[in-house]
Amino acid sequence: MDPVLAGVDAYLEQHLSKYIEETARYCAQPSVSAQGEGMAACAQLVREMLMQHGIAAEQYETKGNPIVVGRLQGKSGRTLLFYNHYDVQPPEPLELWTTPPFEPKVRDGKLFARGAKDDKGELVARLAAIDALRDANGGDMPCSVLFVVEGEEEISSPHIAEFVLEHKDILRCHGSIWEEGGIGRDGQPELVLGPRGILAVEISLQTLSRDAHSGGGHIMPSAAWRLVWALASLKGRDERVRIPGFYDAVQSPAPLDLEMLDQAFAKDPGVEEQLRRTYGVVQFAAGRSGKDLLRAVFEPTCNIQGIGSGYQGPGVKTIVPAQARAKVDFRLVPDQDPEDILEKLRRHLTQEGFPDVEVRLLGWMRPSRTPVDDPLVQLTQRTGREVYGGEATILPLTGGSSPEYAFAGPLGIPIVTAGVGYWDNRAHAPNEHVRIEDFHQAARHIARILYGFADLG
Amino acid sequence: MDPVLAGVDAYLEQHLSKYIEETARYCAQPSVSAQGEGMAACAQLVREMLMQHGIAAEQYETKGNPIVVGRLQGKSGRTLLFYNHYDVQPPEPLELWTTPPFEPKVRDGKLFARGAKDDKGELVARLAAIDALRDANGGDMPCSVLFVVEGEEEISSPHIAEFVLEHKDILRCHGSIWEEGGIGRDGQPELVLGPRGILAVEISLQTLSRDAHSGGGHIMPSAAWRLVWALASLKGRDERVRIPGFYDAVQSPAPLDLEMLDQAFAKDPGVEEQLRRTYGVVQFAAGRSGKDLLRAVFEPTCNIQGIGSGYQGPGVKTIVPAQARAKVDFRLVPDQDPEDILEKLRRHLTQEGFPDVEVRLLGWMRPSRTPVDDPLVQLTQRTGREVYGGEATILPLTGGSSPEYAFAGPLGIPIVTAGVGYWDNRAHAPNEHVRIEDFHQAARHIARILYGFADLG
Repeated sequence: MDPVLAGVDAYLEQHLSKYIEETARYCAQPSVSAQGEGMAACAQLVREMLMQHGIAAEQYETKGNPIVVGRLQGKSGRTLLFYNHYDVQPPEPLELWTTPPFEPKVRDGKLFARGAKDDKGELVARLAAIDALRDANGGDMPCSVLFVVEGEEEISSPHIAEFVLEHKDILRCHGSIWEEGGIGRDGQPELVLGPRGILAVEISLQTLSRDAHSGGGHIMPSAAWRLVWALASLKGRDERVRIPGFYDAVQSPAPLDLEMLDQAFAKDPGVEEQLRRTYGVVQFAAGRSGKDLLRAVFEPTCNIQGIGSGYQGPGVKTIVPAQARAKVDFRLVPDQDPEDILEKLRRHLTQEGFPDVEVRLLGWMRPSRTPVDDPLVQLTQRTGREVYGGEATILPLTGGSSPEYAFAGPLGIPIVTAGVGYWDNRAHAPNEHVRIEDFHQAARHIARILYGFADLG
Repeated sequence: MDPVLAGVDAYLEQHLSKYIEETARYCAQPSVSAQGEGMAACAQLVREMLMQHGIAAEQYETKGNPIVVGRLQGKSGRTLLFYNHYDVQPPEPLELWTTPPFEPKVRDGKLFARGAKDDKGELVARLAAIDALRDANGGDMPCSVLFVVEGEEEISSPHIAEFVLEHKDILRCHGSIWEEGGIGRDGQPELVLGPRGILAVEISLQTLSRDAHSGGGHIMPSAAWRLVWALASLKGRDERVRIPGFYDAVQSPAPLDLEMLDQAFAKDPGVEEQLRRTYGVVQFAAGRSGKDLLRAVFEPTCNIQGIGSGYQGPGVKTIVPAQARAKVDFRLVPDQDPEDILEKLRRHLTQEGFPDVEVRLLGWMRPSRTPVDDPLVQLTQRTGREVYGGEATILPLTGGSSPEYAFAGPLGIPIVTAGVGYWDNRAHAPNEHVRIEDFHQAARHIARILYGFADLG
């Protein structure tokens, strides 16, 4: 083995617990962007962490939460960008956590905390990889590294695109490892080549100036009923979105895309049973099963995040609700445009007889993709083979959303994934955790990508 | 004027403020049956109040909240039953109250408190009428009086029917004044001859063992969506209930019923504008207007009291909700049977493809009616004329529900309404209140009904 990589492995073996402790300290700082909790303190903490690892770091103010940019000079002229975020999902429902979300605890070889995987563990694994590589390489970095750590990823990153456009000069780079990554059930890396886009809105209406007695239900217009009818007009039980023009810009998956997805399914046909067990699914949406569960990622979605109207306490309250609201997100595939979909949604509701329904934009991101034959994809596959011993699974598109479009387009770079995850991290759910051994392997993988990236161009 | 009635009026004129204070003390005791708050204490308070007015009172335990029965011997062999309830609606939303719901305050000739009208003010007005009549009548009551004061009216009176059946021997009587009554916009009494029935259910389902990331929305079954679709299958935008057989037992209103409703509308055509202003209505349900607003009381309803699913906090949370629930009430007209409708609802949901939707019974009451030509109706009209100076409005059916069926059938009695209400008491809503002058007139009216009832047989 290359002596530098042998040194990397020895360093990480010896110092692993130190980085798990650093992850725990980072997770102990709440930073719930949806609720505005702890954001400034967490940005400050990220800057301090970067500097403690010898990375020059600056905090940039935005109209939302600050963005922290770190910079480490390397020997080659090439720069790899790490995108991460310091904000986390809301921890609710709190009663389903075994230990409190912001009191990190190690149990059974796992670190439990909100953010342990998404996305605080990822950042610390990268810092560990850099420390290991410099230690093994006589103090030098083979390539330059940029960190962009934002605080609004979980609320659709409303300011990152503008930030990248305005700071293109200081963000010049040659490729990026995205904020998250990890391994599949076969223990091999999953390489994701792009996210779906998202459009998130609040749909609300008011039919009365105050709740009325339900004894008047034969004449009093109900906000709850109108919301139900308006939502039912958006999507049928066949999961087909009914907004006119919604599917116009959808690009059908290429044969190669489907081949990769079918290969992924063939490698792990147990994914169906695993999903059923993990989420207690009896019937998947639209009755899907088998390889269609993976192929369906090329279908855009219309999802209700939450609904609220009227009385939700114990017992009964005989009212006609005056107000109702729902949060809805659409996951968009190439080349759907969130702004176009928003306009079509509004037009649809008006045409369906709901001009009184208000649609408020909560956030959006475009879909984005990196070509399968990019050298960075090949480097990540090769180094993954060295660390994990097998072939990575390539996923041409993933179901979630992240602001890759904000970097990929303006900076003209390929973006891949590599990280600390596995299939049951419970990101966005109670008992989120990272497995310590996954963290260890991810640091080894990232170090190898950095080492190989220096000469990739 | 009859000297006894002159004495009644003088007594009430002199002592009115004492009874308003008594109402305030009664309202200061919270008794929210839906939330189980203060029920035992309020039952005890009612028993003490009755006894302080010289009425023998006993508390009966039920499987729910206690029922207080009061008994006062009169000179004639006839007994009038007062039905009341000491429970009140939940006070939420608290932020819309000008003064706190359980801290009664007099402003502008009105007493504001949760329960001031519904139904605590009604009980105290009856006690005032009895005090006045005995005072003016040499200490004697002309007829006997029974009080039945229950604590579960606002949660559909699940135990009153069984209680009446089991205590028919001690509840023998010849007629009843129901728990509530009042005047219309013309200042004349509204005489309601029966309520609609009600069926209240919770409709809930769970599609996942825990919330999933909305990036999996193309395959993860959503409880929120299934609830929306299940609800949308119950009622269309034309307000027509789609449950097969729902309308089978509906009796069309008789020509006389419609005549009375049309007379009521002709007396007060401003009801439409008043409702628009009071509740901020732009368009009534099913586009109704004019006299159809009153006639529609003969239409049964399907109302959503509340819906809740997923994330309802600020910002976004990108989840597919695992659970969803709605509270739904049906207002039933003669001769719909709540148990029959419940069975049809369950069958409908299963047949529509929602066998996973759970329907939990929260409560029910049957519809009930008293004939227009009953002597008690005529007595209430005549005495109303003496107090209010004009003709009562007769409403053959009212939109709300109350357990009249539990008394009317087993006891074989007519039931009418008379009370302290007016058209804007805000019962079931923030800033509930009773107008002090309405309270005064209601006490005078009740005293006259008691006086006349002695010889009615």
